[in-house]
Amino acid sequence: MRVRLDRIGTAAFRAVAEGSGGEVVVDGSPEIGGEGRGMRPMEVMLTAIASCGAMDVVHILRKQREPLESLRVEIEGDRADATPAPFTAIRIVFVANAAVDGHKLERAVSLAVEKYCSATASLDPAITVRFESRRE
Amino acid sequence: MRVRLDRIGTAAFRAVAEGSGGEVVVDGSPEIGGEGRGMRPMEVMLTAIASCGAMDVVHILRKQREPLESLRVEIEGDRADATPAPFTAIRIVFVANAAVDGHKLERAVSLAVEKYCSATASLDPAITVRFESRRE
Repeated sequence: MRVRLDRIGTAAFRAVAEGSGGEVVVDGSPEIGGEGRGMRPMEVMLTAIASCGAMDVVHILRKQREPLESLRVEIEGDRADATPAPFTAIRIVFVANAAVDGHKLERAVSLAVEKYCSATASLDPAITVRFESRRE
Repeated sequence: MRVRLDRIGTAAFRAVAEGSGGEVVVDGSPEIGGEGRGMRPMEVMLTAIASCGAMDVVHILRKQREPLESLRVEIEGDRADATPAPFTAIRIVFVANAAVDGHKLERAVSLAVEKYCSATASLDPAITVRFESRRE
């Protein structure tokens, strides 16, 4: 799996993935010349973790023919007050539409985060990952 | 640090970061309904790691008033052949323009990846991270 990044601004980079062809623009903090052109690197990392879980939740509920119409994922990361500033704790909330069976959603979220998600499995085990699900 | 993801396709999600306001579209594999609308989650994770290092390289070389004009980062990740499939090894190559001092580039890349990068510091220490730099 390969990604190539080219500098497109003082601290801005366009990343292109060889496999999917997908693109992401990342930008730095204003202190290093960031101009708000994209997410910061650690926000991109939270996106990887949340989306990895989300894909698995979609996959599991589709196989179970659950009427999944909407799915929102909110992810929050606490970081060490140091250099470097790795994540110390991550919380993920999965919100599905009310027609989805609550028990099946809970089970899918738990399997996704704890068993299937390759992004979570790539994290330092010292980082606490908490998750919950709800319907609305 | 917070990111919110909303489902915008079968396996596609739009992520918006609260802090920077940056957006990323992530999509799943074709097997789970992905339509090639964006990077896959693990490609997004490589993007986080590479861009984190890139920001620090830019920052260090700017402080040293090195004539950094272009910077390309190529990142490659090997994954376990299992479920989940975390990264087992990651290689990062930083390519700067020829006018940058080779020794300063090498030193900046080493500091960025090994000392400053919060994304690398959030990875499982079992993952091997190798890096190199060159000018062209």
